[in-house]
Amino acid sequence: MSIMSAGEEYIVRGNLIYTESMERFSALSDGGMVVKNGRIQSVGPYSSVADRGIPVLDYRDKLIIPGFVDLHVHAAQYHQIGMGMDETLIRWLEKYTFAEEERFADPERAAVLYADFIRELVYSGTTRAAVFATTHPAATDVLCQLLKKAGLGAFVGKVNMDANAPAELQEETKASLDLTRQFLREWQEDPLVRPILTPRFAPSVTRELLAGLGELAREYQLPVQSHLAENREEVAWVAGLFPERASYLDVYDHYHLFGDTPTLMAHCIYLSAQDIQYMADRKVYAVHCPDSNLNLRSGLMPARKMLRAGVRMGLGSDVGAGNSLFMPHEIVRAIEVSKVYAMNHPEDDPLHLSEAFYLATKGGGSFFGQVGSLEPGYAADFLVVDAADHQGRRSLIEQLEFFLYHGSPRNICARYAAGRPLV
Amino acid sequence: MSIMSAGEEYIVRGNLIYTESMERFSALSDGGMVVKNGRIQSVGPYSSVADRGIPVLDYRDKLIIPGFVDLHVHAAQYHQIGMGMDETLIRWLEKYTFAEEERFADPERAAVLYADFIRELVYSGTTRAAVFATTHPAATDVLCQLLKKAGLGAFVGKVNMDANAPAELQEETKASLDLTRQFLREWQEDPLVRPILTPRFAPSVTRELLAGLGELAREYQLPVQSHLAENREEVAWVAGLFPERASYLDVYDHYHLFGDTPTLMAHCIYLSAQDIQYMADRKVYAVHCPDSNLNLRSGLMPARKMLRAGVRMGLGSDVGAGNSLFMPHEIVRAIEVSKVYAMNHPEDDPLHLSEAFYLATKGGGSFFGQVGSLEPGYAADFLVVDAADHQGRRSLIEQLEFFLYHGSPRNICARYAAGRPLV
Repeated sequence: MSIMSAGEEYIVRGNLIYTESMERFSALSDGGMVVKNGRIQSVGPYSSVADRGIPVLDYRDKLIIPGFVDLHVHAAQYHQIGMGMDETLIRWLEKYTFAEEERFADPERAAVLYADFIRELVYSGTTRAAVFATTHPAATDVLCQLLKKAGLGAFVGKVNMDANAPAELQEETKASLDLTRQFLREWQEDPLVRPILTPRFAPSVTRELLAGLGELAREYQLPVQSHLAENREEVAWVAGLFPERASYLDVYDHYHLFGDTPTLMAHCIYLSAQDIQYMADRKVYAVHCPDSNLNLRSGLMPARKMLRAGVRMGLGSDVGAGNSLFMPHEIVRAIEVSKVYAMNHPEDDPLHLSEAFYLATKGGGSFFGQVGSLEPGYAADFLVVDAADHQGRRSLIEQLEFFLYHGSPRNICARYAAGRPLV
Repeated sequence: MSIMSAGEEYIVRGNLIYTESMERFSALSDGGMVVKNGRIQSVGPYSSVADRGIPVLDYRDKLIIPGFVDLHVHAAQYHQIGMGMDETLIRWLEKYTFAEEERFADPERAAVLYADFIRELVYSGTTRAAVFATTHPAATDVLCQLLKKAGLGAFVGKVNMDANAPAELQEETKASLDLTRQFLREWQEDPLVRPILTPRFAPSVTRELLAGLGELAREYQLPVQSHLAENREEVAWVAGLFPERASYLDVYDHYHLFGDTPTLMAHCIYLSAQDIQYMADRKVYAVHCPDSNLNLRSGLMPARKMLRAGVRMGLGSDVGAGNSLFMPHEIVRAIEVSKVYAMNHPEDDPLHLSEAFYLATKGGGSFFGQVGSLEPGYAADFLVVDAADHQGRRSLIEQLEFFLYHGSPRNICARYAAGRPLV
């Protein structure tokens, strides 16, 4: 569409729903949103922004909602979705995941596999993602190229692993650092697809590699993503591997990989109250992956406790341990897990729908800057959703609820990232 | 298709997967299934049944699996899916459900609403269901007509409620019994759509109505369905309403509505070990509705304990408290709930995939007779599923796993009930 060329201005007309704050939805019937240079300039009743002589995208019978943010996803695990779900973390990694990731040594094959992943990511309505690739630099570059071509915003990590990995995936420490440096130099100037340091998790990295990554983080002011306290067995393993560190998170923290630069930590299930407070103080994001946590029997993340402590939070599909890239699936699962958690912790209210929606949009989006809402100044990442019933009885919020609980990507009529339509 | 006329014989060629027993899948690559008079006559390698001069439905690259059995679904709640999920049972009933059910006083409107429900039920791959209608006899008759026209097998209940219901839905005791008798006379001879006695749940029925229904059950040898021990608040309410009864299930049992004839009880979360044993002895089915139990924060059903005690079990979508008619969603949810349960009850292993699949096919199907498997003698209820990857790497079981965890009704290429294609 010609009106989507860079810098062009246009108006989106529709029923706008977003969460300015966690506590409640903002819903604007027949609203208008002015988009310029890929950002939202103003929002209000359509009548207040109409007649400006600029093009109008007329979605007046539809919902306009922020694009979804997937804050933890393994692109290379897309093709193993739903397999081996009777296993738990360590065995699942050994039996399925590592074998799958070895295929990415071949960048041509990776191009085919990653294209499948991106196609479904876009179809599912995700417009920003924090992505784990694999240890392979060529394939990781391919992934970035494909994300850029698709128009998605992403942080992409070349995975670092120099310990406790199968021979085919394990790196030499120095090579891991050199390749990482090379990767981040290539991508650090891109406006949408950016590098993020990605030590897989504490058991997969030596002290030397952690130290080197910590230096890179500070030198290039790079964000960091990893896993933290997902599974009891893993937590015990880390304690054994790093007996000199006070806790699991201290392994990362000691090497400047825990909040010195913006940091994402997936799972965060087995943390003490002190750990949780420290995460909040360090502004480290807890990425809640409820579907994965259920599938791998990892545990129940205490989301309400963490939110109360002021921890920043987003949702992650954690595909392939999670079994869907469609973030409403994760929103519902987050609510379900919080309901189960509340059965034994009555002091911790379950998440409300607006809170879980916020986590999957503005909460996770804040890691990317002004992303995940339909407020002025925010990136114009949005979805057009049709969830009306043929009897016209559902309110706007009920249409959204229906979409989140019962809908599918088929309900999404159009997707825009940074103001551009995705195809 | 002409080959589908009654009595005609045909062969289905494909990769057959089913669960003869709970413990494991039976998978037959390039199998053949001979169907005659709506039943499976024989099953074996395709080569062993080929060349009989009868038509062949060639699905050789696809999976053939049993149709799904939804053992607890409220047809009238289909349009309220996904709404009010921040509430718990009693408030949700009052705020959403009763208002929705009042609409079925008008049979013409009911025809439109029930048609939507059936369209999605068929699309989702359910070929048999135990269905709650509403108290309204005309609308319930419409529902039966539509199910029959669609070719689905079902038990359908006109709901009985003569207490603690909103004025618009509450019945006089005698009228409730008279209308029920009339309804079951009309439908008891139908081969596929049959009546089932359906007291909503103990709080909604007086002793007099329970006694009358118990008499009807014995007089007409009719099956029974209701709800049991779903929610703590509800359990306490029942104890207060029926102080003379030893337990919740004793309310039904005392009036011959608990195993005197085949009986379905949805939820069964808050039962003593003695209750569970009694259910097993009485051959009463526990209908596990994990999605609903999560959404309404009802609790975690101890499926493993009940299976170990020998309780018969199936799965129910419990739409509208459940948010999907697609039974694989319920299969995965049953596994997830069992994993969460096992976190605090290590003696109770989580359900394996084959077990949860069994519950949604042969387990629930057994309530209908020989239904829910691809064994000789069973009703020819089956689905044709495409879940192959374009690289051809998935085994048959992995294709099934992928479909159950990540698939959607779009993966179902064709649906057959009692040997006839559904459209």
